Amino acid sequence: MPLLPLRRIPSLVKPGQSLFSRFSHRPFLSRRSFYGYISDTKMAPQLEPFFKQVDDSSESFIDRLRKAVAIPSVSAQDENRKDVFRMAQFLASELEALGAEVHQRPLGKQPGKEHLDLPPVVIARYGNDPNKRTILVYGHYDVQPALKEDGWATEPFELTIDSKDRMYGRGSTDDKGPVLGWLNVIEAHKKAGVEFPVNLLCCFEGMEEYGSEGLDDFIQAESKKFFKDADAVCISDNYWLGTEKPCLTYGLRGCNYYSISVSGPAQDLHSGVFGGSAHEPMTDLVNVLSKLVDPQGNILIPGIMDLVEPVTEEEKSLYGNISYTMDNLHESLGAETGIHPSKERTLMARWRFPSLSIHGIEGAYSAPGAKTVIPAKVIGKFSIRTVPNMESPDVNKLVFDYIKAEFAKLNSKNTLDVWLQHDGKWWVASPKHWNFSAASKAVQQVFGVEPDMTREGGSIPVTLTFEQATGKNVLLLPMGSSTDAAHSVNEKLDRRNYIEGTKLLGAYLHYVAEEPTA
Amino acid sequence: MPLLPLRRIPSLVKPGQSLFSRFSHRPFLSRRSFYGYISDTKMAPQLEPFFKQVDDSSESFIDRLRKAVAIPSVSAQDENRKDVFRMAQFLASELEALGAEVHQRPLGKQPGKEHLDLPPVVIARYGNDPNKRTILVYGHYDVQPALKEDGWATEPFELTIDSKDRMYGRGSTDDKGPVLGWLNVIEAHKKAGVEFPVNLLCCFEGMEEYGSEGLDDFIQAESKKFFKDADAVCISDNYWLGTEKPCLTYGLRGCNYYSISVSGPAQDLHSGVFGGSAHEPMTDLVNVLSKLVDPQGNILIPGIMDLVEPVTEEEKSLYGNISYTMDNLHESLGAETGIHPSKERTLMARWRFPSLSIHGIEGAYSAPGAKTVIPAKVIGKFSIRTVPNMESPDVNKLVFDYIKAEFAKLNSKNTLDVWLQHDGKWWVASPKHWNFSAASKAVQQVFGVEPDMTREGGSIPVTLTFEQATGKNVLLLPMGSSTDAAHSVNEKLDRRNYIEGTKLLGAYLHYVAEEPTA
Repeated sequence: MPLLPLRRIPSLVKPGQSLFSRFSHRPFLSRRSFYGYISDTKMAPQLEPFFKQVDDSSESFIDRLRKAVAIPSVSAQDENRKDVFRMAQFLASELEALGAEVHQRPLGKQPGKEHLDLPPVVIARYGNDPNKRTILVYGHYDVQPALKEDGWATEPFELTIDSKDRMYGRGSTDDKGPVLGWLNVIEAHKKAGVEFPVNLLCCFEGMEEYGSEGLDDFIQAESKKFFKDADAVCISDNYWLGTEKPCLTYGLRGCNYYSISVSGPAQDLHSGVFGGSAHEPMTDLVNVLSKLVDPQGNILIPGIMDLVEPVTEEEKSLYGNISYTMDNLHESLGAETGIHPSKERTLMARWRFPSLSIHGIEGAYSAPGAKTVIPAKVIGKFSIRTVPNMESPDVNKLVFDYIKAEFAKLNSKNTLDVWLQHDGKWWVASPKHWNFSAASKAVQQVFGVEPDMTREGGSIPVTLTFEQATGKNVLLLPMGSSTDAAHSVNEKLDRRNYIEGTKLLGAYLHYVAEEPTA
Repeated sequence: MPLLPLRRIPSLVKPGQSLFSRFSHRPFLSRRSFYGYISDTKMAPQLEPFFKQVDDSSESFIDRLRKAVAIPSVSAQDENRKDVFRMAQFLASELEALGAEVHQRPLGKQPGKEHLDLPPVVIARYGNDPNKRTILVYGHYDVQPALKEDGWATEPFELTIDSKDRMYGRGSTDDKGPVLGWLNVIEAHKKAGVEFPVNLLCCFEGMEEYGSEGLDDFIQAESKKFFKDADAVCISDNYWLGTEKPCLTYGLRGCNYYSISVSGPAQDLHSGVFGGSAHEPMTDLVNVLSKLVDPQGNILIPGIMDLVEPVTEEEKSLYGNISYTMDNLHESLGAETGIHPSKERTLMARWRFPSLSIHGIEGAYSAPGAKTVIPAKVIGKFSIRTVPNMESPDVNKLVFDYIKAEFAKLNSKNTLDVWLQHDGKWWVASPKHWNFSAASKAVQQVFGVEPDMTREGGSIPVTLTFEQATGKNVLLLPMGSSTDAAHSVNEKLDRRNYIEGTKLLGAYLHYVAEEPTA
């Protein structure tokens, strides 16, 4: 796409001056020198009224988040499917009210659960100027399960703001806050009368927390249609490394999620009556699960580590400069139960080595109290976070063969099955693209610091899908911080992260409009 | 207590004839010879109208069970405590309407959960004739947890009768059916105008499924007061060995129920963000649980088997004659997943050897679907079924020491705790007492077969308490059959077992009135 006329933001980048040795692996300007520079400059004229409008509208933006959190759009639970649809409608209505062209695209029946319709993908276009760049943004409007009795201090589906301006609620940070951030950006531009700097394409899905069922094919098809003008992709669905310093993310681990079922008797048994006389599925399952990973996090499945790309000396050198300490880890854990002694090894364990976590067991007694039953069928669940160059079919074969072999050693008459519930591939991108440099400038404008260039341990499989389908650069631009407790009890988004994050998304679009095509 | 005048049932036992070599370890009369005898005799006059009345009242007795099942008196769950109280009131009202003297005795606050009152013990007296024997009967009116989504084919708290007259509902067989059986016996005597043969004392508790909290002290105290006249005790809270042949039970395993908690981070963690960098409580717990028992049911805790009374040759010989086959095991399992190759070894594994079952994990993801969380704190639950001569303190010490030692080997920074949730001792009684011989005659009168003399794998800790507190013989006289699925989904009681079982309880009381002392 031709990029004329490029509107430069005069106050931030002086002609002929290269502010940043962008996306090289050398350190950026130091924080001190950067602050010195920023304090001498004036804010870009088109950003100033936008930022002021975001501040002025902040209560209404928080109210928008409150309404969204109140819809329990849990994609993993059948009984909430209607709420996922309600959430899609909420987003579509808000976008329409802002003047966007909106479609709710059905994805058909849910594979394996044909009584359920998959939630629609909400797609939207705001602006259609061939002289502007077009940015495709992605987010998801479904959330993880949440029950008050899991240990939430507040009702999980009521946005509750405490005295420190922490906004608690399921989906606040993952991913309703960031999704609504884009809507807030449009609204603030309209209200402030600032021209929108790019054409915006939205792709908001409702099955992210359940493996993004049906989305890949949709994106692939729309990359030649609704999304065909996209010049780059921006995804806001991850978190800062710490709590103070924003980051831009250029790599993600993948995730292969497995289930192991062990079944024996036709129904649950009284452990007094039958204990000792029948093979117990729980005994077998616990035995097999104990063979997967050791307490130091080493995956015990033979061959898995052979698939992992070796660490180079150059890569090692990247980790030293990242703003992160063991105290940060301990703070986010709320405990000093880290495995590794150093920051570097900790970050590598999270970003560039695989890990295996056992999530739970379906079919066994899980409530408080004491129940003396022998469960008839139990399903253990675990996932492997994958990294280059672990290809899913290779991992699956190693996992299945090993688990079946370990079960065979038990000499049990029970029946074991193991299957892949879903997978998403790892992703590593080039951070030297204009998409990243624009985001870096936006971070500096809004937060006054250079972002850390990070990878992430979590999986956002759609990242890779967008890269492959559009052939464009994909940027991860997080809004929330490391202590937001995504997927956990007491998930929250700080008011600052939401409001300044909205400014960040808007500023990013302005810098995108200015960046030369590298 | 003087037993005059003893009213003999003339048709069943002819003067001078010893029908059964009762409670020796030699085989009873064969089924064929017994049938031949029964067919030649007439029913005792006082039983005939009673039996007829039970048949005539059967619909109203089933309706009584329906009302009881509808009250979800789950003692293990705080939110159902009010229903446990409702159930106590239901029983008390029914007993009062039948003319019994009834008291609801409070047991104070629940230890460790002081916000909850323990449910009352419903005690009652029906009849106060010093010329009659006094029988103390025990049952419980609380039930195990049950949720439709656990896999019930019907609503667990709605009694649902299928075309084969199986009556499904939580508590139908464990233990509301048997408890109501005693009420039915009183009602049928009143309606038929048959004199009640004994004085009946009732002790119905509401915490049996949660360790009978507070009951031991109560029984101990009342054994010198409300229960002081008891000549023998009868408990109906277990099951036939198979589905056709009743049994009398003279031994029970005990049960020590343990919890192991492993905790680390302050809250659940996102496995993508933290996987590989922190010690995971589930990894440690699964590892420890895998060290408790092998898939062949062998307890791996050193020293446990040393506590078990060795099997004598005489004891071995008892098992050959019991009416049980491996097909019976497979039928009740609904699968051919038995561990042992023979009936004898199977029954010994259930009755006279300890077993260890892992029941489940609290705090981990247990729902269907996929949740990629690292649980912050998980509590594994297991129980050991105990036998002579395993004393609880000895078992506890071995369990605690072993688990702590195994956890230490893991070199995890997480924190482990292990504790006894509740225990109940094993019990073995003499089956040669008149209490047993009366029950044996009643079985033959109602069902036309000699009962098997059995032990049981399950725990009914109160059995031992009654024996120790009253110093009297305790009999276990089951109503339900082996396929009733107590503690499991689709718990049921066959209409036949309920109605003929009511006859059995009544007939037992008549024979009790006749049996000579010793």
